[in-house]
Order: sequence, then C-alpha cells, then structure tokens
Amino acid sequence: MDVTVAIDCMGGDHGPTVTVPAALAFLRRHPGTRIILVGLPEVLEGVGREAATQFGERLTLQAASEVVGMDEGPATAMRNKKDSSMRVAIDLVKSGRAQAAVSAGNTGALMAISRFVLKTLPGIDRPAIATVLPTRKGQTYVLDLGANVDCEPEHLLQFGVMGAMLVASVEHIDRPSVGLLNIGEEAMKGNDVVKRAGELLRTSGLNFYGNVEGDDIYEGTTDVVVCDGFVGNVALKTSEGLAQMLATFLREEFSRGPLSKLMALVSMPVLKRFKHRVDHRRYNGAALVGLRGVVVKSHGSADAFAFEQAIHRAAEAAGNKLIERITQRMAAMDGVKA
Amino acid sequence: MDVTVAIDCMGGDHGPTVTVPAALAFLRRHPGTRIILVGLPEVLEGVGREAATQFGERLTLQAASEVVGMDEGPATAMRNKKDSSMRVAIDLVKSGRAQAAVSAGNTGALMAISRFVLKTLPGIDRPAIATVLPTRKGQTYVLDLGANVDCEPEHLLQFGVMGAMLVASVEHIDRPSVGLLNIGEEAMKGNDVVKRAGELLRTSGLNFYGNVEGDDIYEGTTDVVVCDGFVGNVALKTSEGLAQMLATFLREEFSRGPLSKLMALVSMPVLKRFKHRVDHRRYNGAALVGLRGVVVKSHGSADAFAFEQAIHRAAEAAGNKLIERITQRMAAMDGVKA
Repeated sequence: MDVTVAIDCMGGDHGPTVTVPAALAFLRRHPGTRIILVGLPEVLEGVGREAATQFGERLTLQAASEVVGMDEGPATAMRNKKDSSMRVAIDLVKSGRAQAAVSAGNTGALMAISRFVLKTLPGIDRPAIATVLPTRKGQTYVLDLGANVDCEPEHLLQFGVMGAMLVASVEHIDRPSVGLLNIGEEAMKGNDVVKRAGELLRTSGLNFYGNVEGDDIYEGTTDVVVCDGFVGNVALKTSEGLAQMLATFLREEFSRGPLSKLMALVSMPVLKRFKHRVDHRRYNGAALVGLRGVVVKSHGSADAFAFEQAIHRAAEAAGNKLIERITQRMAAMDGVKA
Repeated sequence: MDVTVAIDCMGGDHGPTVTVPAALAFLRRHPGTRIILVGLPEVLEGVGREAATQFGERLTLQAASEVVGMDEGPATAMRNKKDSSMRVAIDLVKSGRAQAAVSAGNTGALMAISRFVLKTLPGIDRPAIATVLPTRKGQTYVLDLGANVDCEPEHLLQFGVMGAMLVASVEHIDRPSVGLLNIGEEAMKGNDVVKRAGELLRTSGLNFYGNVEGDDIYEGTTDVVVCDGFVGNVALKTSEGLAQMLATFLREEFSRGPLSKLMALVSMPVLKRFKHRVDHRRYNGAALVGLRGVVVKSHGSADAFAFEQAIHRAAEAAGNKLIERITQRMAAMDGVKA
C-alpha cells in the first residue's frame, strides 16, 4: 500500500499515549506505508529519535500549536484554532502530502473542519459518517450515523453511492449490495422520503437490494445499509446500549457467588472467543465520506489496538482509491439523474 | 382485579394451542378476573366442559366464523371479515362486555380494526404502539413502534401522555419520567419535529426528563421513551437482530468441540439465569394506546407463557384505568395547549 496517513495525535480520551503507539505499530505491520504524526511539539519530542531511526523517511513529525477539546464547539474549533493538530492533519490531506487523516477527536469539529478544508466531491451535497458493524455473515457498513438529521431522497441516494464505493475499496467487494433501512420489506412501506429514495436507488445502477429492516443490519443481509443520520444514530446507540447491558448481565451472573465464579473460570476460553468475535475495537474507524479526501474518525475511547484499526481502514480506503471511485460513480450517474 | 379480557384465540403462529392454555393459566393465577375466549366453534368445543365447570361464569366462550390471516391486508381484514375472531374480540370491548382485548394476530389488521371500532380518545390524533423493554434498572416503555411513520410534534407529545399513563397503570409508578429520543442530550439537537416536540413536552406538566439517546433505552434512564414510529421500529428491530446474533455467537462458541460443550454444561446454571434475565417472553404484549379501550398485541410467535404475560398486561392496564387516565390527562392539558 503506497499511502501516507496523517494522524491527529492529540485527539481522543487518551491522546498520544494511544495514538502514537498505534501509529508505530501500524508502520511496523504495513511496509510501504507512511505516517505523519501531528501534535504539540513536546509530544513529538517524546516520540523522538529511536522511532525516527527505525522508520526513517516513513515517519514524519509535524508540529501543531493547538488542540481541539473533546467538548469544543465545531464553529469555535474551526475559527479559533487554525493550527490545531486536527486542522493541520486535514490540511495535509488537502495539500496532497497525505492521502488520509485519522483523528479520535470530537466528531462535530472533525466534520466541520474536514468539510471546510476539503469540500465535498462533485455531485455530493453533504458528507456522511459511515461505520462498520459485525454481522452473522461478516460485516455491514451503515451510513449516515448522525451528520445529516434531515435528509432528502437525493441524499440517501448519494449515501448509497458513497457506502458502496467505501465497501468496494476497503473490503474489496466488487459490486456491494445496498439496502435501504425501512420499517418493512415492501416498496410501499415507510415515510415519503424513504419511498422516493427507494425509487432513486432502484434506477441508480448500484447493486440495490431493496428495503431492509433493523434486524437485517446484524443479519448481514446487505453490504451497505443506507439511512438518514437521525435513524442511523439511534440504531447505533441503541445497539451500543443493548450490547453493554447484555455484557453487564453476563458478567453479573458469572460473578454471583463463588460457584458462578468458578464456572466463569472454567468457561473462560469460550467466553474469550465470544468476546473476541464481537470485540467492537476490531470495528473501530468511522469514515467521513463524500469529501475530497479520506478522513476517518476513531472512537474517542479507543485503545492502541482499536486506533490502529482506524488507521488501517483509512489507509485501505485511500490506497484503493475511494475518492476516485465515488467521483467516477457520481459522474456516471449524472446522465441518469438529469 | 375486577376485569374481563376478550381473547382472540385464532391469532398468532400457533393459534388456540397457545392462546387457550395461556388464558386458562391466567384465570387460575388471577382470581376475580374473567376471560371471554373468541374463536371458531370447533376450537371452542375443544376447550369444552372441564374448563367451563372449573371456572364457571369467569370463562365465556364466544363463537366467531372467520379468522384474519397473518399476512392479510388491514383493509380487506376490516371490510370482508366482520365476524373474525379479532373483530369480535374488539367489538366486545366496544360494547363494554370486556375491558380489554388481546390478540397475537397481524398488527396492521389489529390496529386498523381497533381504530375503526373503538375510535381514538379525545385529543388523541393517532393511536400508537407501545412496548416494554428490559433495562439495567428494570424496564422502559417505548412508543411509537411503527403505527405512525410521519409524526408532528403534537403527536410525540400525545405519545408522551399515553406512555406515561400506561406506565402509571401497568407498573404502578406515580409520575413516570418521559424521555424524548434524540441524537444528543442538548435541547438544540435533532431535527425540527423533535426540537418542537421537546418544547411541547417541557410545558406539558408531564415528568419530562429531556432528550435521551439510543443507549438510554437499555440504560433505563427514563420510564418512557417517545419517538416516531419509523425510528422506534428501527430501534426495536435492530435490538432484536443484535440480541439474536449475540445469542447465536454465544451458542456457537459453547458448542465448538467437546471441551466447549462440557464448559457449557458446567456453566448451565449461570447461562440459564442470564437467559431468564433477558427472556423476551417476559416482555411480551405491546399496547395499542390512544383508543377508547385497551388492546394488547402479543408477538405472533409467542408461547403460552409469553401470551399469558400479554393478557396480564392488558388486565393491569384496564384494571388500573388506563383509558380514564389518558382522558383526564389530555383534558387537563387542553388549557395549556389552547
């Protein structure tokens, strides 16, 4: 993979203690890739000499003088912090020095800065946030997850294109299937926007499966599930809440008295396999798609393993020409739309 | 509980083999209650003499000549089957011979018939479907779950009233807390409809908590979670899909080879406790609220245990004056709204 990824070292709950080791681990595992670490000078000093000698020109350190706070408003982050590590990382994509940027910083600021600096691709009205979820069959990409709360049918069509091209580049699937999240399988179901989006997707040239329902996400019915940002955000957060509740219940039942604890000990290998299979860290890295550059948002609480997955996803998308694919697909559809 | 519940014996995947034993079990467990079994004559004959002698006048058999199919369209079910077991059960509520009806038949037909026969309560524009979900702290009622895909702020306000009164009557909570499902906690978040609904709920006199997010459902942050039917349906089905996937994964890992199977055997008591805790059968029975009568929809695949929970929920709602509570609350709010 001949690709350079810019890393905002300062974002996330753990900042450089997570982002820097993750970036170095990524470099170690993927020869041919390059990383630009963007952070406060004192942080970059800490990365220092040994890494520099180990990776040579594959590792670049880029100083930034400011940090966007996790609770900072998008507008103030954009206006007042033009030399933040987040902004500088995005600027590197804009200038072409990097092909992708990764940040665990706050989503609102990252989206606002990315949109302002990179701009949207031709034919794309609004960028969307796409995440990958584990399913019975493998994984499904869902978008949008909250960037767009009020969507027109055309936006959902664009999400379909963006999602399909994302899966094509990151998962190497030729013609990914696209489902439209609805409350019934029949074409007549749902609200007006979804019904009209279904019509657009049906004639889009995409591998459109039709309507899918909430349970189809984890069934893995389609490679891509398209929905507006309100619905997608609720579906994702509801899933997180349910998974956490079930994990807590399982833990509580396995620690209810000495006998249960013994059973947990005995079953540990199985429980560990189960845990690994649904480990959300493996699915870390939401793509901000529709922009003139690859930007991936890591979960704020990501550890080094999880953050490395986000870097990997960004490198795959950029290395496999996500931007070019979306651009071509939108251009090909121009005739259809007009 | 001095209450009569009409049961549509024919609905659901298993029909009378589930509904009849569940109804008789309910009668056995709840002295003072009465049941009217509505079904085809040949089915009622099967219930027969011993039950009649055991329960005396607490059990009434009411013949119906037709059955609404599980895939039948609401309009045809309503127009062409005026003597269906579903319709007759609802008619019994309308005439006052029963205070509640329970059916495991198809949701669309049940809603259409209930709405046509019973009509909505004063001040209620549209009935909603409310279900109960398990949470870390107990349970939460969520509505709407699919009856209303395009909602105005006023509808969400009405769902809040209906949900709060449902929890008050079924769970005996004095002033249930009401949350508005959104994609952020701040009042400025979300789409226009939700923002305006938040304003209405804030001045409604209900115990309004404010915005909640998807994970708050299973956190148990509020007693009631209000959302439009599209979002609610997606949240519910997504949850079902995730729970099923996790259960499958857990089962698969515990049966991967003889050693894992042994571990499963050893851990059985713990796994059983866990399973009981999240047993969806305990939460069976979605209320169709906002009508001039109590109607509860059981899951189509319910077994006798699950169906009995739905009957119990219906009896609690009717016995604790759900209809009167909603009516009074809407009347009290009339001044506020005008």
